[in-house]
Amino acid sequence: MLSPVTPELERRLRAALPEAAFRDLAPAYLEEPRGRYTGQGGLLIAPETTDQVAATVRACAEARVGIVPYGGGTGLVGGQIMPDGPAPVILSLERMRKLRAVYPSENVLVAEAGAILADVQAAADAADRLFPLSLASEGSARIGGLLATNAGGVNVLRYGNARDLCLGIEAVLPDGSVLNGLKRLRKDNTGYDLRHLLIGAEGTLGIITAAALKLSPRPAQTGAALFAVPGPEAALDLLAMTGARIGDGVSAFELMHRTGLDFLAETLPDIRRPFDDPPDWMVLIDLGLGVAQDPAEALEGLFVEAHAAGLAPDGLIAQSQAQRAEFWTVRESIPLANRRIGAISSHDISVPLSAIPAFIARGGPALAEIGDFRINCFGHLGDGNLHYNVFPQPGKTRADYEHLRPAIKTCIYDLVHGMGGSVSAEHGVGRLKVDDLERYGDPAKLAAMRAIKAALDPVGIMNPGAVLRASG
Amino acid sequence: MLSPVTPELERRLRAALPEAAFRDLAPAYLEEPRGRYTGQGGLLIAPETTDQVAATVRACAEARVGIVPYGGGTGLVGGQIMPDGPAPVILSLERMRKLRAVYPSENVLVAEAGAILADVQAAADAADRLFPLSLASEGSARIGGLLATNAGGVNVLRYGNARDLCLGIEAVLPDGSVLNGLKRLRKDNTGYDLRHLLIGAEGTLGIITAAALKLSPRPAQTGAALFAVPGPEAALDLLAMTGARIGDGVSAFELMHRTGLDFLAETLPDIRRPFDDPPDWMVLIDLGLGVAQDPAEALEGLFVEAHAAGLAPDGLIAQSQAQRAEFWTVRESIPLANRRIGAISSHDISVPLSAIPAFIARGGPALAEIGDFRINCFGHLGDGNLHYNVFPQPGKTRADYEHLRPAIKTCIYDLVHGMGGSVSAEHGVGRLKVDDLERYGDPAKLAAMRAIKAALDPVGIMNPGAVLRASG
Repeated sequence: MLSPVTPELERRLRAALPEAAFRDLAPAYLEEPRGRYTGQGGLLIAPETTDQVAATVRACAEARVGIVPYGGGTGLVGGQIMPDGPAPVILSLERMRKLRAVYPSENVLVAEAGAILADVQAAADAADRLFPLSLASEGSARIGGLLATNAGGVNVLRYGNARDLCLGIEAVLPDGSVLNGLKRLRKDNTGYDLRHLLIGAEGTLGIITAAALKLSPRPAQTGAALFAVPGPEAALDLLAMTGARIGDGVSAFELMHRTGLDFLAETLPDIRRPFDDPPDWMVLIDLGLGVAQDPAEALEGLFVEAHAAGLAPDGLIAQSQAQRAEFWTVRESIPLANRRIGAISSHDISVPLSAIPAFIARGGPALAEIGDFRINCFGHLGDGNLHYNVFPQPGKTRADYEHLRPAIKTCIYDLVHGMGGSVSAEHGVGRLKVDDLERYGDPAKLAAMRAIKAALDPVGIMNPGAVLRASG
Repeated sequence: MLSPVTPELERRLRAALPEAAFRDLAPAYLEEPRGRYTGQGGLLIAPETTDQVAATVRACAEARVGIVPYGGGTGLVGGQIMPDGPAPVILSLERMRKLRAVYPSENVLVAEAGAILADVQAAADAADRLFPLSLASEGSARIGGLLATNAGGVNVLRYGNARDLCLGIEAVLPDGSVLNGLKRLRKDNTGYDLRHLLIGAEGTLGIITAAALKLSPRPAQTGAALFAVPGPEAALDLLAMTGARIGDGVSAFELMHRTGLDFLAETLPDIRRPFDDPPDWMVLIDLGLGVAQDPAEALEGLFVEAHAAGLAPDGLIAQSQAQRAEFWTVRESIPLANRRIGAISSHDISVPLSAIPAFIARGGPALAEIGDFRINCFGHLGDGNLHYNVFPQPGKTRADYEHLRPAIKTCIYDLVHGMGGSVSAEHGVGRLKVDDLERYGDPAKLAAMRAIKAALDPVGIMNPGAVLRASG
């Protein structure tokens, strides 16, 4: 059984930590982007060093008080918010944002967990390197949270998920011991891979305090295009054609539906529309190439072949970096437009690549049997990862459909699960999908997860109720 | 406490499994390539299905009998050999070698654990794809063992280690339950990543029975070159120059020393020597490029620049696939030549890339204080992974130096550890390096590993004594 934060614990923490570690528990720490949860916390601690994190964890472990690790607060599944249970310590990494070292010749950067993604990208850039993790919230998301949730984003196709961009981690385990795993090695087969266990565990097995991140050479030239496609099947064929022609140079391949552009026009009218009359389906292709290849030329060659094959009735190739940025603004603004419209139910799903057309073809009619919705389907086609979000018809609100939410979710998740897909492709489980994990997860996997959680965190202090139901 | 195989267990297994699952325990199952261990086993079981593996594990768990999972038997650290303790069941995956499915449009192949690497490579090739895992033992190593040990090899620089080439696994856990994790997804954030935990656990947390493997597009054109380099520092500079010029197209970047070529001349005289008078240091560069780039031209351009910069006094560029194969034969035959010479002590180490020249510069003099040896240093420079092997002087044998082995090993491992390196870069821990892991491993990591092992395998039946000391 966990205990709430007590005056005695606070006294102990004040004796162990400098005054600066104690911050006001502002309301922002108890909110999350989609407004589905309201948190509670007994105390906000923002340590400045790994030792201070360890001291905090040790004190909480002895007092049996829960800890909610807090990064940039951008998570979409409530992993950073504890709405019920005994009031926890909220441990924010916001003061641990040092970039400890950059090793350009090794393509490695060592960052503390509180470093903001955009700052890491900028530091890599200053060293003439690329840190390829990129997503809409990069201006506020922090490295620790990005690793704890194994964040995805737009460059996974080429560079992998957050876990693929991490060579080593330093972390504080639930007993307060410090895992010193900040190795800068490409190969290290010395025992169980705890790095990969903590990455994606959403703070339930320990708190990542620093990471050795993998940088890449910065592509010499970049370019982008928006191609209209006849439909998802054609988009997949175009993906294959793009890979065959351009190979490893394809950094992103994003699918968008006209609904997304309509939402933008409705809620963010200042954003320039790339097509006067948007097609039903389109893809955003981004390239990063070496010195010898011209991206615009590569995209023109691709368009000619795709057009001839009936895969691209229309297309726009960015003629400047400004135009490339415009294309990306469209893509990256869709989540905000969605939030302004107000989704009834959002689904971050993945299916095997070849199942995407069937999923899209079956999703719409299945939902139509439940009610009359608008669907905005967009996402990382190259990764088989779609954001399949369901909205009210114009003139109605989310509240009008609230009673249909469970049926919508079950409809989509059953379909995804039946196709061998995932009900959380990149956002994680948090608290939002604990039930879904129980419903769709492999029983042997769940049993092993519970055994590992009990072994490493027997009292259950680390992010109680996230990923796995809180015990006791 | 474990029990040896009993007649009762054998009766139970014979009732549960078909006759074909029982094979003769031939001596080959009790030997390993370097001849350091002799195994023992009570029974050899070769199941044909995952259910049969599960039935075997359940019976052994109830009887508290150890299981040694057996793949191709090519491991170099004794992970497949149990020299002491109660006689275990040896569970060979040799009859589970089906390739269950190939999905070319998804770049995925699903193979059973007993599939031989060369067969998987060939199946990928037949689908016009590449399965990039490649190492000297690929004609006998099996997928299950390659994943259990997170095998490396020559293409890690471009494509990653075995774990990076696996999207999902099916495995039998120590309680006999089946983990159904054969997902073909690029993104799946639904709970702890048990795939990465089992990969590299060397059969101590469960038995991998099948895997969804990641294929790559087959490079349109390949090429190779051997460049003489003035030394390790220049080799690193050449690696950076190669990356800057050729980018993602660099598939392998292997360092070799003249000693390796001398060993080849001495023990395998039929292998053609690429240089009449081999330089002290040389690198083998392998490229896989798209249709638009000519590998020989790219290598010639590289040579001109490298030569002008003093990084490549001499060089050979393969003028045909036959010549490329000759270069690779040289590289891939070095381990066999080493075995024929007979190493006193072999070290599969990695250090941060920028520390390689210092490691090599300091290793020789440090060893010279212990005795008079020949050193063959070669390996995967691009990964910071060297095979640093110590040999007798001509006319002497390994036995003459046996008493110096512990001092040699400590000397090298202390040096590596002090540089933030790994004492097992790609071969794993097995039984050979259990002591080393205890000596050099992070204490918090070891404690967490032991807790996880106890949680998932409380009786300790899975590969007892590998990676972690056997309990009891």
